[in-house]
Amino acid sequence: MDIEFLGTGAGMPSKQRNTSALVLDLTDENKENWLFDCGEATQHQLLHSAIKPKKITKIFITHLHGDHIFGLPGFLSSRAFLGGDDSVDLYGPAGLKEWLQHTYKVTGTYLPYKLNVHEVHEGLILETDEFKVYAKEVQHVIQSFGFRIEQKELPGTLLIDKAIEQGVPKGPMLQRLKDGFDVELENGQTVYSQDVTTDKKKGFVIAIIGDTSYCQASVELAQDADILIHEATFTNEYAAGAKEFGHSTIVEAATVAKEANAKNLIANHISARFMPGEMPAFLAEGTDVFEAISIADDFARFQWKHGQLIKLQKN
Amino acid sequence: MDIEFLGTGAGMPSKQRNTSALVLDLTDENKENWLFDCGEATQHQLLHSAIKPKKITKIFITHLHGDHIFGLPGFLSSRAFLGGDDSVDLYGPAGLKEWLQHTYKVTGTYLPYKLNVHEVHEGLILETDEFKVYAKEVQHVIQSFGFRIEQKELPGTLLIDKAIEQGVPKGPMLQRLKDGFDVELENGQTVYSQDVTTDKKKGFVIAIIGDTSYCQASVELAQDADILIHEATFTNEYAAGAKEFGHSTIVEAATVAKEANAKNLIANHISARFMPGEMPAFLAEGTDVFEAISIADDFARFQWKHGQLIKLQKN
Ligand SMILES: [Zn+2]
Ligand SMILES: [Zn+2]
Repeated sequence: MDIEFLGTGAGMPSKQRNTSALVLDLTDENKENWLFDCGEATQHQLLHSAIKPKKITKIFITHLHGDHIFGLPGFLSSRAFLGGDDSVDLYGPAGLKEWLQHTYKVTGTYLPYKLNVHEVHEGLILETDEFKVYAKEVQHVIQSFGFRIEQKELPGTLLIDKAIEQGVPKGPMLQRLKDGFDVELENGQTVYSQDVTTDKKKGFVIAIIGDTSYCQASVELAQDADILIHEATFTNEYAAGAKEFGHSTIVEAATVAKEANAKNLIANHISARFMPGEMPAFLAEGTDVFEAISIADDFARFQWKHGQLIKLQKN
Repeated sequence: MDIEFLGTGAGMPSKQRNTSALVLDLTDENKENWLFDCGEATQHQLLHSAIKPKKITKIFITHLHGDHIFGLPGFLSSRAFLGGDDSVDLYGPAGLKEWLQHTYKVTGTYLPYKLNVHEVHEGLILETDEFKVYAKEVQHVIQSFGFRIEQKELPGTLLIDKAIEQGVPKGPMLQRLKDGFDVELENGQTVYSQDVTTDKKKGFVIAIIGDTSYCQASVELAQDADILIHEATFTNEYAAGAKEFGHSTIVEAATVAKEANAKNLIANHISARFMPGEMPAFLAEGTDVFEAISIADDFARFQWKHGQLIKLQKN
């Protein structure tokens, strides 16, 4: 699983940071890409990324502020011209569907693929073969959701020598055993999957939280998560303003990570008032509370591999 | 008067061309900037231009296709944060006002300046001290307007030696004469403005036409214009498709300029299928019909000065 940040700014685009959008690249898990939020010019950012719009089949919207949705009508429309004909499932707060319908009516837009808009509620909002996605309301000036994506348990590794020792022939039976099924050999003997595989592997857990003040719901969403993506609009100096406008400081994001016992924190939604040169001091405020923090820049790409979060080099 | 093109592509953004937007920089005429169309990421383009969002006080929308309006909600909203507190007059087809209201309601957006939305109809839609703006329906797959901007006559030059010869003292009387008023001297003698000024100067005329097939209405809008800005989505090879989707070829744009007796044609709304290297051949198709054509690129800036259209160097 990779995470690519397409927009890491707050409120308005700047030359450094676009408005909110990030992609979970689940190519290795289920061949899909999932988009979280879609600020204006997300489709423009994708022109400078290796991510293909047609591969984005699920979109999650945290809340309906313009800097999180103004790129949605254009993205969905352009996707149709870029080979996207698979249906899209869109999860967002109440009101999103009606607005999109109005937008496409007034612009005379016809999407040639099916767009299923699901109104997000608290609890389990999606279950696939590989994942469960939960939503929970966090604390912002309008209704805002955080998401928790839990990868389901993965089958253990097949101990091939042990299977062959028990008389399993080369071929499809090995795959059945690897997938967790017991098999019966020609001689009538049963070989049990658990005897010839290692233990099942825990899947990863990632919490993606949009705009929010520090709140308990965020801690619950991020409980024991491998990766928490949390907004950090401001530094401590602006803590009062952060609270007033439903945002967080980097210290508050770090506090959520610590209280939730998360393994890694990636902070985004950084105010344009902080210049690139100020980012080391910005980061230091957070690492005083929680060590494993990265600040996401636009086009930053992270990889989750063998239980480790790796920041990939920008190309 | 300067013209700056912010988006010269068709339908979707590409790396080379953004979706439609251009600015008439009328700083010299009335200190205003007028924006024509506002495709997605127009506010992003402005980050790379010297044009200040707060100086944009009038916006004209040719038609409601997404590639001409999806940047409007974000632009208007960001303008408020960039020092824009003067009211904005927005001229566009029926349906625009309702869509913006819905958009701002669903996103919880409050604009701290007054936004006056005017529904465009055929005929004179705006008259200021310096300009008259006319609209006329052109031919597209949805209602689409072209605009004709006529600068009013400018006062002639004051022949200062001649005025002083007639006994006019230095001071405010000279300005009155220059502005076209007659004045009475202390000795009771009247000095007539027309005797001490050159003839009034004709203002410029510019026609800005959005998406359209070749049509007579475009020729009327561009009649004797100094500058015609006309879409040229395709070359002759795609003439049938152009007509089907309500667009023009470069030859059709050139034909409008020729039939209208326009002085200059600037072509925009170029399909992304044409690569930079193909533009000389693209242009040549047009210049076979009408000589004075420029193809606009994003950030191209043109100046109208002393009756001449000059392409400024990109910075
Ligand atoms: Zn927000
Ligand atoms: Zn159009």
